[in-house]
Amino acid sequence: MSGSQSLEDAIDWILVEMEADGLENVGTQNVLVPHWVRGKETLDIVSPRPRNIPVLGLGGSIGTPEGGIEAEVLVVSGFDDLAARSAEAKGKIVLFNVPFTSYGETVVYRRNGAPAAAKAGAVASLIRSVGPYSMQTPHTGSMRYEEDVPKIPHAAITLEDAGYIQRMSERGISVSVRLHMSAETRPDVMSRNVVAEIVGSEFPDEVVVMGGHIDSWDVGTGAMDDGGGCVATWEALRIIKNLGLRPRRTIRVVLWTNEENGLNGGRVYRDSVASNLDNHILAIESDAGLFKPSGFGFSGSDEALEIMREVGSLLAGIGADSITEGGGGADIGPLMRDGVPGMGLSVDRSRYFWYHHSPADTIDKLDPRDVGLSVATLAVVAFVVADMPERLPR
Amino acid sequence: MSGSQSLEDAIDWILVEMEADGLENVGTQNVLVPHWVRGKETLDIVSPRPRNIPVLGLGGSIGTPEGGIEAEVLVVSGFDDLAARSAEAKGKIVLFNVPFTSYGETVVYRRNGAPAAAKAGAVASLIRSVGPYSMQTPHTGSMRYEEDVPKIPHAAITLEDAGYIQRMSERGISVSVRLHMSAETRPDVMSRNVVAEIVGSEFPDEVVVMGGHIDSWDVGTGAMDDGGGCVATWEALRIIKNLGLRPRRTIRVVLWTNEENGLNGGRVYRDSVASNLDNHILAIESDAGLFKPSGFGFSGSDEALEIMREVGSLLAGIGADSITEGGGGADIGPLMRDGVPGMGLSVDRSRYFWYHHSPADTIDKLDPRDVGLSVATLAVVAFVVADMPERLPR
Repeated sequence: MSGSQSLEDAIDWILVEMEADGLENVGTQNVLVPHWVRGKETLDIVSPRPRNIPVLGLGGSIGTPEGGIEAEVLVVSGFDDLAARSAEAKGKIVLFNVPFTSYGETVVYRRNGAPAAAKAGAVASLIRSVGPYSMQTPHTGSMRYEEDVPKIPHAAITLEDAGYIQRMSERGISVSVRLHMSAETRPDVMSRNVVAEIVGSEFPDEVVVMGGHIDSWDVGTGAMDDGGGCVATWEALRIIKNLGLRPRRTIRVVLWTNEENGLNGGRVYRDSVASNLDNHILAIESDAGLFKPSGFGFSGSDEALEIMREVGSLLAGIGADSITEGGGGADIGPLMRDGVPGMGLSVDRSRYFWYHHSPADTIDKLDPRDVGLSVATLAVVAFVVADMPERLPR
Repeated sequence: MSGSQSLEDAIDWILVEMEADGLENVGTQNVLVPHWVRGKETLDIVSPRPRNIPVLGLGGSIGTPEGGIEAEVLVVSGFDDLAARSAEAKGKIVLFNVPFTSYGETVVYRRNGAPAAAKAGAVASLIRSVGPYSMQTPHTGSMRYEEDVPKIPHAAITLEDAGYIQRMSERGISVSVRLHMSAETRPDVMSRNVVAEIVGSEFPDEVVVMGGHIDSWDVGTGAMDDGGGCVATWEALRIIKNLGLRPRRTIRVVLWTNEENGLNGGRVYRDSVASNLDNHILAIESDAGLFKPSGFGFSGSDEALEIMREVGSLLAGIGADSITEGGGGADIGPLMRDGVPGMGLSVDRSRYFWYHHSPADTIDKLDPRDVGLSVATLAVVAFVVADMPERLPR
């Protein structure tokens, strides 16, 4: 987690291993990152039937007063429903019980639920965890406050418990809960992006950059989000090196820090290469887990897309040759907004959001063969684009 | 849970509702049941990296001393491995890390792991939860001690954490944990089987009995194990009643108590009908969740099986016409051992053991249509067998 000693320890370990792998220009970039600490959390249903339920505070949330916050729950089906019933929200804990459709459609309640509830006078807000499936699995993630709106604690409960509270509420049975959170935001601390390269033989200043983000949420182990992306891009580079291949252009792996709750790593990287952006040929991100890869989603010119489809066709043998239009990643977003073609590794997404930001994001969920296929897909595409006689057009 | 006030409250509620449904001879049978109370439980990995992990004590286990038990973990792959390495087990906590194959093959470590570990000198024992899939999901269940073998605490951890400890162990990294359990077994208390009938018009003493068990584990809500079986058999009877149908023989629904950690409900029921066992035509149990039904597993004579296949064919329209050889249920086991033909509702079992005995056994996992199909399957078969001109042969 950004701000944690564990993250910096992991970075230190990676640097040693990357040097041992014989990668070139192994180093770091300092990145100032937020330091949010979860602390202790409990959520108890007080009535109608007392029960302790799983809860995860959302990243950036304030804590509760020491004695917790006890209040009746007002269940709403979304922002419109909250607006329609705002007169009922005062002094209550608002629960946004919004079933998962897509991540984009439902994550808005995680991100922006607290200020919306606070404006209506709520004393805390809860969300149904953002995910399509649950085995009593809470999911954390980042949230925001708004200026001039009171800050209230904001936390996620499981699909099961959100459904229970909804059913009680529909029967006219009032549900009260007591929320304890000792979360706090401490002063920003320094973290680092990790960088390693194979320097190009002919055009060393021209760069194909690829990577994942090295920070993760504090629950689970971040195997999917995004340990996998880090390991796969690093391993792709290591394999190219071990094969004795040196492409015409530089391939650079960057493990960005602070994707989850700030995106500062991606911004610092972009700023660090601002003078060389024209020479950033392609940016590749892997941040959807290392499930079976199908290819890439590409954002760039039509001409470049055609070339990428040709490159992608090399991966037909492993079924990873689908180059679809549109794609990228949060860490390479700043590069892409400045005109660098970008793409994201496409994988089977059927279970990604089962585990995302939850205690179940652990390495056992990944199939070693799928991991290997993802590495191969990244290695082939990065090498070919870095080694083409002509640079990928914009 | 057997011994809990919640169970007795549920039974009281059911009795009122069954009377309101117009069912006949609604009543109870007293059953003395064990009273195991989980209390508070925590399991902390102490080294190499401190972390609190999910744990569920196994039903019947003793607790730890107040300060907990802290020891190194010895990971074994089964009883044979433990026997081969018993010299290493003294003073340690044995972890049986046995991947799920079938319930029958892996549940033995839950049931009998503690005495096996204790004989080797272990101070506590852990199992990898009995189930094929996990999202950091621990599963509880019953366990046994042996006479003249020291009692040690016995608990389940998740697949993820068992895998983690195994990997550390394989790398030669010692894992130590601290287990706290305040579990205790209190004096037996009185619970009840619930009984309700539609009395037969022609042969009221001849009985088709069907049901599920009304006790469940204390985690989750027992929606699958076995709230579903109770509700489905009750609802099947209610529908027959509401349709104004009265079969030639009596249909009796029994909601057995104490299936999970004693089977006393099934035994008391058998004893209560000992003088009328010849008139028990068929015993039906539903205890595999209300997933999509495929028919029944039947245990009885070949002649009876042929007839049941004819009866089952009525369910071809909903795909529930498969009558396979062999089947029954734990609660009807005592009846079956005394010669009563028995059968169990067969359902899609692909996810049953994902939820079984875990906090994820909640009603949201069931599809209302599958529940309805299960009710229909039970209603049709129970009615037809109760209403056939000739009794089902033995």
